[in-house]
Amino acid sequence: MPDGTTGHSNTQPKDCNQVAGSVDGSLKAWLALSLIQGLGGAGARRLLKELGSPDAIFAASSLSLKALTQPAVAAAINLGIPEDFIAPVFDWLEDSNNHVVTLADGDYPQSLLNISDPPLLLYVKGRLDLLNQPSLAIVGSRHATPQGIKNAEAFSESLSHQGLCIISGMAHGIDAAAHRGGLKARGGSIAVVGTGLDKVYPAANRDLAHALAHQGVLISEFPLGTPPLAPNFPRRNRIISGLGLGCLVVEASLQSGSLITARLAMEQGRDVFAIPGSIHSPQSKGCHSLIKQGAKLVETAQDVLEELGGLLSAIAQPAGVTTNNNPVLLEHLGCDPIDIDTLSTRSGLTVSELSAMLLTLELDGLVSKLPGGLYQRLH
Amino acid sequence: MPDGTTGHSNTQPKDCNQVAGSVDGSLKAWLALSLIQGLGGAGARRLLKELGSPDAIFAASSLSLKALTQPAVAAAINLGIPEDFIAPVFDWLEDSNNHVVTLADGDYPQSLLNISDPPLLLYVKGRLDLLNQPSLAIVGSRHATPQGIKNAEAFSESLSHQGLCIISGMAHGIDAAAHRGGLKARGGSIAVVGTGLDKVYPAANRDLAHALAHQGVLISEFPLGTPPLAPNFPRRNRIISGLGLGCLVVEASLQSGSLITARLAMEQGRDVFAIPGSIHSPQSKGCHSLIKQGAKLVETAQDVLEELGGLLSAIAQPAGVTTNNNPVLLEHLGCDPIDIDTLSTRSGLTVSELSAMLLTLELDGLVSKLPGGLYQRLH
Repeated sequence: MPDGTTGHSNTQPKDCNQVAGSVDGSLKAWLALSLIQGLGGAGARRLLKELGSPDAIFAASSLSLKALTQPAVAAAINLGIPEDFIAPVFDWLEDSNNHVVTLADGDYPQSLLNISDPPLLLYVKGRLDLLNQPSLAIVGSRHATPQGIKNAEAFSESLSHQGLCIISGMAHGIDAAAHRGGLKARGGSIAVVGTGLDKVYPAANRDLAHALAHQGVLISEFPLGTPPLAPNFPRRNRIISGLGLGCLVVEASLQSGSLITARLAMEQGRDVFAIPGSIHSPQSKGCHSLIKQGAKLVETAQDVLEELGGLLSAIAQPAGVTTNNNPVLLEHLGCDPIDIDTLSTRSGLTVSELSAMLLTLELDGLVSKLPGGLYQRLH
Repeated sequence: MPDGTTGHSNTQPKDCNQVAGSVDGSLKAWLALSLIQGLGGAGARRLLKELGSPDAIFAASSLSLKALTQPAVAAAINLGIPEDFIAPVFDWLEDSNNHVVTLADGDYPQSLLNISDPPLLLYVKGRLDLLNQPSLAIVGSRHATPQGIKNAEAFSESLSHQGLCIISGMAHGIDAAAHRGGLKARGGSIAVVGTGLDKVYPAANRDLAHALAHQGVLISEFPLGTPPLAPNFPRRNRIISGLGLGCLVVEASLQSGSLITARLAMEQGRDVFAIPGSIHSPQSKGCHSLIKQGAKLVETAQDVLEELGGLLSAIAQPAGVTTNNNPVLLEHLGCDPIDIDTLSTRSGLTVSELSAMLLTLELDGLVSKLPGGLYQRLH
């Protein structure tokens, strides 16, 4: 049933017996498959192709497994599903805001299906619906300039206002600013993290992680409990770049990890955008290097939208522009009086977007404004 | 005979009876042809192609002229060479630093022969030899930022040091800084002005014009006496862009005339370079617009040199690096004691370049250092 208190998923009412479309039996097998050491993404996909499903893999004979994979991997699979390791995931899934989506789920991000190494499954905390929205990666330096931070937040808010979900890596600096901007408007934000979803890294971003979990979404391919491990971060970057229609680098030194994300985006056939700056600023050299390699120089959010062009034709107009989308807002209003901040959290719309829409609904006689800044649905 | 006092032309000893290779008779006809109202560059080239030379054009019958051009133009030509208008040019040419070079002269810039509308002739004040050196246009806003001015001067000096002659339009701001930088090193500088060469515009650049006339060169296609007329400046820009191997825009608003120069450079098949800046600076928007259209983003003078690549293979190493060019320096030294500043003015080399070269010559026993900072040639 829809969760009226957090409003984390406004398009996917969620039943706790139904974990992102998988029945528990299959999900256990998917989780177990993802935990097999030494199998790897390519190996897992080969087994899935030959044997059909994770359940079939765990039911396969030792002989047929040895023909398809390394002996040690075959032996690990033959040990069966390690219930002790899987149980904590089901405990974690008791929270209705937590999900696991597998390659076989309809909620799995379709954009990741065309990258060379899609994760077998994703741990998800927050709004599942964002995973299949038009989205853009916005990344950059952890040691950004104050102007870089402002630019990241402004581009993100503007593009989110136009309906693009903002993907980033929840690092300090540009990443955090991109998430903040994305969460300010209807597009929302996705954080692709390099740890298990029961960890917050860096710890200073705890408030941001909380906001993402409730207004946006955090995702990870790494099992619960995975600490921050250096090699996992560059690997994680292929998901940041692969999820989006494109990748915007706001500020980056020549050593910045965001250049890895941009390179992966190019390899994945995504548009790469970069914001220029002074030739004397070390934090602009990475962006300039990308532009020299063919990235598109952008000065405004509009530049990004124009380049994405046709890819975005599917995005609806902002809800505030017409009254056509107000039925969605009426659903968010529910039947009890509600204040505009809660409504903003629940709907993912900004307070200013909501004010305009609520005024229209009030004039149409559909909503009443109550004392204390509360709104109530009348029909 | 070489003019020992100004040393304005170190490769072209000049005889006053020999005006840039033209005999007076022919030069009169070239000047007269260039002054015919309504003929235009294309019309003049058609007449030259059909009739062979300006002298032949002025000797042609009314009937044959009318078959080749407009009646009013034919009538003007039939009036013959307007001696009264030509005489002041010959007065001006009495100064050995002044020249006129025509399409038929060897000193005419070869790079202009492959643009669509090369000037029939150029008025030249200063070093004729610079007109056929490898060169680069460096242009930009009159209302540049202090950092833009610094960048223009630094790029120009560095590229001049590498042997590129710096072309610009002697306007306030970026243009003036480009000339100053160019004059600081061996490449020198060419100012393509939009007035007659007996005028200085803007007046505030009088000192710069003086320096250009003695260490670099000023050129114009407009007759002596031509005041600053708005339509002449964009027309002049095709010479700035056409003379160079490429065109670098340092800073430009979207309204800057330097964008016209850059567009002409693109049309002429020249490389176009632009320096990026903050997306919030109006003076960088023109550069960003050019990069979006395909101009190459450059951060350093080295970036420019690398892009020009093969085009520059003909440029010799800086004179200070080897002693091969010292015979030229010996010519500039003359036979009388000379101080290093005068030698710098005469040779177009910087004081630091000269110091290194003079030390080498001194060690080789070819030059003696005298009290009072004077140098004397010994052989």
